[in-house]
Amino acid sequence: MNILFFLTPKASCSYLRADDSMRQALERMEASGYAALPILAKDGSYCGTLTEGDLLWAIKNLCTMDIRATEDHGIMEIGHRRDNRPVRVDTNMEDLLTTAMDQNFVPVVDDRNTFIGIITRKAIMQYFMKHYIALEAEAARA
Amino acid sequence: MNILFFLTPKASCSYLRADDSMRQALERMEASGYAALPILAKDGSYCGTLTEGDLLWAIKNLCTMDIRATEDHGIMEIGHRRDNRPVRVDTNMEDLLTTAMDQNFVPVVDDRNTFIGIITRKAIMQYFMKHYIALEAEAARA
Repeated sequence: MNILFFLTPKASCSYLRADDSMRQALERMEASGYAALPILAKDGSYCGTLTEGDLLWAIKNLCTMDIRATEDHGIMEIGHRRDNRPVRVDTNMEDLLTTAMDQNFVPVVDDRNTFIGIITRKAIMQYFMKHYIALEAEAARA
Repeated sequence: MNILFFLTPKASCSYLRADDSMRQALERMEASGYAALPILAKDGSYCGTLTEGDLLWAIKNLCTMDIRATEDHGIMEIGHRRDNRPVRVDTNMEDLLTTAMDQNFVPVVDDRNTFIGIITRKAIMQYFMKHYIALEAEAARA
């Protein structure tokens, strides 16, 4: 299987330039709606990834923000772009996979909506990877 | 297959409280190292997800930061917590899966390190999901 099967080509990707300022990155990232963007050099080579978190911690640590002002606002007041959709503990595998498709983790709740934990995409992918390797080994033997 | 197989139980999760202030959330999130955390109400029910991006855009839009100061800093000057590891276009499926395990997208480069696109975890999971459904259907027929 060729990995190009899965490719989103450059023409369909959002990305940043290595010489962008933080302000340009803030604006492009807010407009793109993505939580992380690849950074490209002028010659088109890949040189890293910038996340919303990188900008957040840089702004916090460069002291360009008034940290005390954040004490007056609760986290339920501000917008949540991606409230992860929870699944019930008795949901089936197919629903879990569909939900995990669009979010990094899936909160799991019981029948009274009590939070009992999360399922990460990593845990799911680890399972499928083992499965894939086993299938490949079988195909090689046949 | 039971979805509990994949569960990270609450005791091993980082999470926020619904009555946390933005400042508390900033501090917990920076310490946890995660890009998003579930939010729980006092009664233990799940009530949403807060991301680094939610905090970033709230800080930007509440005007508690000096946006002009961000013009003087380039994005390569600030720290990148999670520079996504790229793969070469001729890599094999197993390496792709291993790389995708820990990052939301995998940058793909050619043999001169030129960026040609990305592979998202979503694209990989969609493929495995189709595969899983086909296997289930086969098992049901047998």
